[in-house]
Amino acid sequence: MLAIEIIEKKKNGLQLTKHEIDFMVEGYTKGLIPDYQMSAFLMSIYFQGMTKEETSNLTLAYVNSGDRVDLSAINGIKVDKHSTGGVGDKISLIVIPLVASVGVPVAKMSGRGLGHTGGTIDKLESIEGFRIELSEEEFNYNVNSYKMAITGQSANLVPADKKTYALRDVTATVNSIPLIASSVMSKKIASGADAIVLDVKVGSGAFMKSIEQAKELAQTMVDIGNSLNRKTVAILSNMNQPLGKEVGNANEIKEAIKVLKGEGEVDETTVALTIASYMAVLGGAFNEFDIAYEKLENIIKSGEAIDKFKELIKIQGGNPEIVDHPNRLPKPKYSIEIKANKSGYIYNIYAEIIGISAMLLGAGRRTKEDKIDYAAGITLNKKIGDKVSIGETICILHTNKEDYNEALERILEAYIISDNQPAREQFIYEIIK
Amino acid sequence: MLAIEIIEKKKNGLQLTKHEIDFMVEGYTKGLIPDYQMSAFLMSIYFQGMTKEETSNLTLAYVNSGDRVDLSAINGIKVDKHSTGGVGDKISLIVIPLVASVGVPVAKMSGRGLGHTGGTIDKLESIEGFRIELSEEEFNYNVNSYKMAITGQSANLVPADKKTYALRDVTATVNSIPLIASSVMSKKIASGADAIVLDVKVGSGAFMKSIEQAKELAQTMVDIGNSLNRKTVAILSNMNQPLGKEVGNANEIKEAIKVLKGEGEVDETTVALTIASYMAVLGGAFNEFDIAYEKLENIIKSGEAIDKFKELIKIQGGNPEIVDHPNRLPKPKYSIEIKANKSGYIYNIYAEIIGISAMLLGAGRRTKEDKIDYAAGITLNKKIGDKVSIGETICILHTNKEDYNEALERILEAYIISDNQPAREQFIYEIIK
Repeated sequence: MLAIEIIEKKKNGLQLTKHEIDFMVEGYTKGLIPDYQMSAFLMSIYFQGMTKEETSNLTLAYVNSGDRVDLSAINGIKVDKHSTGGVGDKISLIVIPLVASVGVPVAKMSGRGLGHTGGTIDKLESIEGFRIELSEEEFNYNVNSYKMAITGQSANLVPADKKTYALRDVTATVNSIPLIASSVMSKKIASGADAIVLDVKVGSGAFMKSIEQAKELAQTMVDIGNSLNRKTVAILSNMNQPLGKEVGNANEIKEAIKVLKGEGEVDETTVALTIASYMAVLGGAFNEFDIAYEKLENIIKSGEAIDKFKELIKIQGGNPEIVDHPNRLPKPKYSIEIKANKSGYIYNIYAEIIGISAMLLGAGRRTKEDKIDYAAGITLNKKIGDKVSIGETICILHTNKEDYNEALERILEAYIISDNQPAREQFIYEIIK
Repeated sequence: MLAIEIIEKKKNGLQLTKHEIDFMVEGYTKGLIPDYQMSAFLMSIYFQGMTKEETSNLTLAYVNSGDRVDLSAINGIKVDKHSTGGVGDKISLIVIPLVASVGVPVAKMSGRGLGHTGGTIDKLESIEGFRIELSEEEFNYNVNSYKMAITGQSANLVPADKKTYALRDVTATVNSIPLIASSVMSKKIASGADAIVLDVKVGSGAFMKSIEQAKELAQTMVDIGNSLNRKTVAILSNMNQPLGKEVGNANEIKEAIKVLKGEGEVDETTVALTIASYMAVLGGAFNEFDIAYEKLENIIKSGEAIDKFKELIKIQGGNPEIVDHPNRLPKPKYSIEIKANKSGYIYNIYAEIIGISAMLLGAGRRTKEDKIDYAAGITLNKKIGDKVSIGETICILHTNKEDYNEALERILEAYIISDNQPAREQFIYEIIK
């Protein structure tokens, strides 16, 4: 078997066998197939696509390239959750205690990575003492005892995907549905999930700009999951503007606490409850989505949800007092209020610019070596559809950096104020299962 | 400017500017753009194609990547000729003396390369004493004095094309019309041609299998030539079977001599006269193709053509006696006759298999280091449409190798004998100008 023949076959639009896909993925991971052949292969996949069977086989090949997490010591159906990425996305912080509250085990593994803000584990580390490196024993014990635990990702999961992703990033082959879908699903499956709920973000602040694209990606991932015996549900959610009002790390923890207390923004409350409900259904706690949703709403109202979050903090070594005293979370030196330069309605908020500004303020990592400033971030006082008067504060920048000028300049371009009231935004567009 | 943005642009089917094409070609040649980005770019070109303007600009970028041959010391319009490659293609050997006979300067530069048999200069080197490394002075002097000279290719012509071609070869990006066309035309233009006649081979033994494909390639090359002020004509000629009856080196010289004496096979005589006529017209010797063709036919009949070939051999240091005594050319130790295993008509001859067999016998180079055996090759006693009786010789293998079994086994698959007489083959399908 020769790599060039497999490239040629895909280039000509023919379906590859499992053996051929394994040959490419294994060969590339081991360094037997060079970057230049893999990039030509990836570009052929971009143009010719992949069948359901090929996409499943590619996912499995990625999974088999490295370790698999063994969650067999944990009782119950382990349901994982994944978001395709958006600005202000703190849904994982909310769903972990929510789903655990109804007895479904949440064994969450999360990476750090680069981005506008930290990942879920970075956000949790803004809580004093919170440990995110748990031993396998402690992790399993916590999930069995408390139905929840979160830990940093093991080093050698899906090395083939890691190597391929780095290549896609520099060869204009990122935006291919089968490549994105197999990359996401391979990580979830290697992490040991029995069932998966996907949050596919759609809109100007997401990778998928149109509902059509997002639907295709969601369907492809659901098909992969089902073909590999993992029950999978995808929700298509709105990312035309950041989720909620807080973008950063410590301030996102504060906002997650609000949601868990029943005082959260309606957009993220709705998305979190929807995802948690599907997780609860897939985990076997309920037969129907509507029943799960109602029950989870009541768990928030009754205070159980926030208590469960306190418990999560406590069992991972953090100080649970921050739940009742969120002001004890890291505070920034500077808070700069941005005022409306005209009156009208907030017509658009470019999530991408908000994200970049947050990173410039110190909330995210540009390179692996960067340290996150937990206190840095942005508070969006006004969101799309809100009325503003000239001079009113529309958002606040938080930072410990003296030089925040670049973020300041950028943030001014993120808000569009218009005389016309925009159409109301929908939070969730569709469910794919 | 970033390579990834240019790949993305081509991937999305947008037209690239001259500046963007130069950036990619220069960057790649200098090693600033890595192989993996270039291969993704080439695959995007395969799928999205290139406009006439882009293809011209790519050709120019290749030309500008290295030296250009300066033929200004040579008087007259310098007409070059190029074949896209076939088995038994000895047309250059015939047209050089023919065109020179009518006063049009033929300043031929030719490479060695790998292949089924040697290239034109390898074939000529089977003549004792023939020198193919001429100094610039000697080359120019010979063309001015005798209207002809042939020399090996300068080392630093179109390095960008050389590097790109090596990458295309291993990334399944060879068969792209704009990439093939710009590669061919850049070499011709860098070699200093004022006008170009292209022999685009079509059929089972050629790279272009269908007339449609070949026509598209021919038109693309003619468009490049015209856009860069080189008058260009392309002929589409038949390569469903090898050209003539000899495939090899010394035996091809013998057959070229026959054609120049007016005793050649009708297929290669027709193709050679057609190409030589267009070269003579582009070189200004005649106004019309038909007049040129008639005149060149007479030059063969009168003996002028073969005398001119003798002159070519003499001025390049070879022994012209071989023209009258072709048996003094290198002779093989072994000549193995292949007999028909049934009676009928020769229905097909797979040129590709004939070529590979010739290489296995020693006629061509598999790697740069291989030495050519000038005496090795194949004589095709029977060609498509010929009647054969069982036991009659259909072809003869020539070699100095004791172990010719692999060639023998393959050759048996090259001939298809049928009870039905095949349709008559056309020699030339079309002229594109």
